[in-house]
Amino acid sequence: MRQTEGYSIEELAHRFGCVVQGDPSVRVTHVASLENADPEALAFVARPKYAHLLADTRAGAVIVSPGTAGNGRSSLLITSNPLAVYARIASLLHPEEGVPAGVHETATIDPTAHIEPSASIGAGCVIGPRAHIGPHAVLGPQCIVLRDARVGAGTRLVARVTLLDRVIVGEGCILHPGVVIGADGFGMAPDGGQWLKIPQLGSVRIGNDVEIGANTTIDRGTLGDTVIEDGVKLDNLIQIGHNVRIGAHTVISACVGIAGSTTIGKHCLIGGKVGIADHVDICDGVSILAMTGVNSSIQEPGVYSGTIGFAEVTRFRRNAARFRHLDDMAKELRRLGKR
Amino acid sequence: MRQTEGYSIEELAHRFGCVVQGDPSVRVTHVASLENADPEALAFVARPKYAHLLADTRAGAVIVSPGTAGNGRSSLLITSNPLAVYARIASLLHPEEGVPAGVHETATIDPTAHIEPSASIGAGCVIGPRAHIGPHAVLGPQCIVLRDARVGAGTRLVARVTLLDRVIVGEGCILHPGVVIGADGFGMAPDGGQWLKIPQLGSVRIGNDVEIGANTTIDRGTLGDTVIEDGVKLDNLIQIGHNVRIGAHTVISACVGIAGSTTIGKHCLIGGKVGIADHVDICDGVSILAMTGVNSSIQEPGVYSGTIGFAEVTRFRRNAARFRHLDDMAKELRRLGKR
Amino acid sequence: MRQTEGYSIEELAHRFGCVVQGDPSVRVTHVASLENADPEALAFVARPKYAHLLADTRAGAVIVSPGTAGNGRSSLLITSNPLAVYARIASLLHPEEGVPAGVHETATIDPTAHIEPSASIGAGCVIGPRAHIGPHAVLGPQCIVLRDARVGAGTRLVARVTLLDRVIVGEGCILHPGVVIGADGFGMAPDGGQWLKIPQLGSVRIGNDVEIGANTTIDRGTLGDTVIEDGVKLDNLIQIGHNVRIGAHTVISACVGIAGSTTIGKHCLIGGKVGIADHVDICDGVSILAMTGVNSSIQEPGVYSGTIGFAEVTRFRRNAARFRHLDDMAKELRRLGKR
Repeated sequence: MRQTEGYSIEELAHRFGCVVQGDPSVRVTHVASLENADPEALAFVARPKYAHLLADTRAGAVIVSPGTAGNGRSSLLITSNPLAVYARIASLLHPEEGVPAGVHETATIDPTAHIEPSASIGAGCVIGPRAHIGPHAVLGPQCIVLRDARVGAGTRLVARVTLLDRVIVGEGCILHPGVVIGADGFGMAPDGGQWLKIPQLGSVRIGNDVEIGANTTIDRGTLGDTVIEDGVKLDNLIQIGHNVRIGAHTVISACVGIAGSTTIGKHCLIGGKVGIADHVDICDGVSILAMTGVNSSIQEPGVYSGTIGFAEVTRFRRNAARFRHLDDMAKELRRLGKR
Repeated sequence: MRQTEGYSIEELAHRFGCVVQGDPSVRVTHVASLENADPEALAFVARPKYAHLLADTRAGAVIVSPGTAGNGRSSLLITSNPLAVYARIASLLHPEEGVPAGVHETATIDPTAHIEPSASIGAGCVIGPRAHIGPHAVLGPQCIVLRDARVGAGTRLVARVTLLDRVIVGEGCILHPGVVIGADGFGMAPDGGQWLKIPQLGSVRIGNDVEIGANTTIDRGTLGDTVIEDGVKLDNLIQIGHNVRIGAHTVISACVGIAGSTTIGKHCLIGGKVGIADHVDICDGVSILAMTGVNSSIQEPGVYSGTIGFAEVTRFRRNAARFRHLDDMAKELRRLGKR
Repeated sequence: MRQTEGYSIEELAHRFGCVVQGDPSVRVTHVASLENADPEALAFVARPKYAHLLADTRAGAVIVSPGTAGNGRSSLLITSNPLAVYARIASLLHPEEGVPAGVHETATIDPTAHIEPSASIGAGCVIGPRAHIGPHAVLGPQCIVLRDARVGAGTRLVARVTLLDRVIVGEGCILHPGVVIGADGFGMAPDGGQWLKIPQLGSVRIGNDVEIGANTTIDRGTLGDTVIEDGVKLDNLIQIGHNVRIGAHTVISACVGIAGSTTIGKHCLIGGKVGIADHVDICDGVSILAMTGVNSSIQEPGVYSGTIGFAEVTRFRRNAARFRHLDDMAKELRRLGKR
């Protein structure tokens, strides 16, 4: 994990637009937390409230925001966005291990598929008719890319990712193991006490720079496509129903379920375990706190919540029992108020 | 996706029991939404409230319910169940691409497994001892069917489906990628501060015409079997615990969790993200709205809910804070009422 | 499933520390429920409230707690922990089918990987550089163990389990199909309206005797490791975020989500569909009821709840509507109280 050479903080400051305070010739070879850092490590203070941890660190250098007091020992890299600078330097110091281009001998490739020579296809992959794998794309072991599906340049399917027929994934994306894109949407017509499957004829289009977490599922559209716009970040075990559209740079935490034909705007933040009903429209710039159930559209940017918290069980149940008579309480209150 | 020949709406009306209004010789080759339809497309109006969209469509023909006014341009196919007729015609116009019978050369088949000659076994599949694959069953890439498991006639495992030992799947089912059937149920005995695994010796029986969504899991029974009856439709990322029984033609939306030994009746509708506790019995004909937590049995058919909605965060929190004192409020109210 | 020989209950009583009441020479060959047992079956009464089922059973013998009245027909095996004794005897009567040691010919093994000769590697497995598979470990079909990952002695990856780079799994663990361990944690830095990926450089360490359910995901740490201590039992479809630590012998039910950097103590019981926020600390010995959302730390052992239950929809909605005015109600109540 460690680059033996490392970089001087002078060089890092120059590359990432920081101001140096302290010795600019200090070299760092890796990143570490403030607590675990050694003199060759670069650490960071993400928020001012953690600045007190600086006092005891042995880090050679620390990324901080302006106005943070040093400890007289670690050099400081000062920037207005410590977390983003940290992310960039961490990527520089700890690059992904490269994978050789080419197709593993155990992969099954349809003769009509197109695979760019710079792409890498791992052990046990299955690539279907007319599928297209772009330049420098990396498919880890056991990925499945079925007929007419496309994987854009530089996109990485980490392992065991399934892209069904006609699914399109853009450039620079990362899809984690167990992701399933393009399974049939959940559409049925009632028919004499039974359910008749409605063919799901659309597909899924994923933009560029999208990350999709492990075991997340995105269903294909009924007639049109399910669409995930550029820069969207999806955590693990998320379900996205058919015909949904998620706006650019929206971030969705784990275990969220979004029902069919719902649209979510750009730059939204959806907390973990949120559920969003079908045919709902959520505008740009909305934050929804974890565990909230959203059953109607949101037209105003802002923060929304729907969870009442928790308590020790006997206390909680006393209140919950009253909740079941809240309407009666309100009526009694009104009656008293009128007297 | 498009059949060049298509069908006249006269022929479709005859086949599917509709009445034609307008030109019966119009030919349609594909289905489309009202908005995107061209003159060779067949669209539909699922519910009267969408009938106004008919005015602007360019569709050659539209499936509608009786009494829907036409636009003078599109022919109408009139039926009392537009959605079901649409589903049938869409399947006719857009048939699944056939897959050739036979076993892919990269599949690993135990010599004691039985595979009907008309079945299709995809790349990388693994079929265990004494497993049985019925006629015209289709196993997409990388499916695993372990010892003594059975896949019924015409059932399709889309890709990467796992059926563990002795699991039985009926006829005409569709199982989407990532489905795991027959993993051990979650049973432990407390034993001196640790947990002792209770062997899960039962299996899972899935009826006919069942559809199971991507990454859904159904655990094997402890002594008897977990049972999914005919015609059940399960969405993605659902968890069904050991010894559960789900009645025929019940529909369960995504992200639902059903704990062990619970029974759910026939013709139920379970909304997304519902949680149902263990050892609960839910009768036939129950609908449960999304996000509801069900912690006791339901003996009466009807609609049930347990979610309080959401609001702008400061407003919501003001009410949630009062909830934590609801019992005190109720006592104070009673005190005032007595005065 | 059945051992033809079986065991006398005298022998079982001796082995597992029980007292026999009735004929000690009765032989049992398998376990069964009280309802389905035949005279060669051993059944059990887990809790006194099920003791009435004893009356009608045909079981040859029944495991019970002291003081349970027999039926004059079945012999009794009396113990203070019937469930644990049942678990042990069931394992004895129904042993796992053995799998032969060795590497399946379709597996892809990196030349630098180390696989103990007593381990079993199933069809289609992929083992990466410097991975280490311990003695008597069993990898079912299509498991992926990537570079520098380790699987401890006697651990079983049932099928289709994914262990990413450097993940360590201890001894005697069971990981069910679809499990993904070591996918990147969900960490991003805001950067001019977009999100910059923060490299996830830590890994995941799983202790001994851990069981992990189907399609559960555990993310790697950002700088340090995500840690699952000895004896933890995780059900299906659980999400565990980066940097989380779960204490020994804690049990977590299905569909739970635990956000990043949260710690959970030892001997906790987390119910199904619980959500726990990030950076929360939960002490040892905490039980959290199903569906609860936990958004702050818990310092006291005990039982906690946060779900208000459910009701018939019109009734529930009347109360939920009042909830939205609960703050106003509280103010009005105070106003009246002052008068």
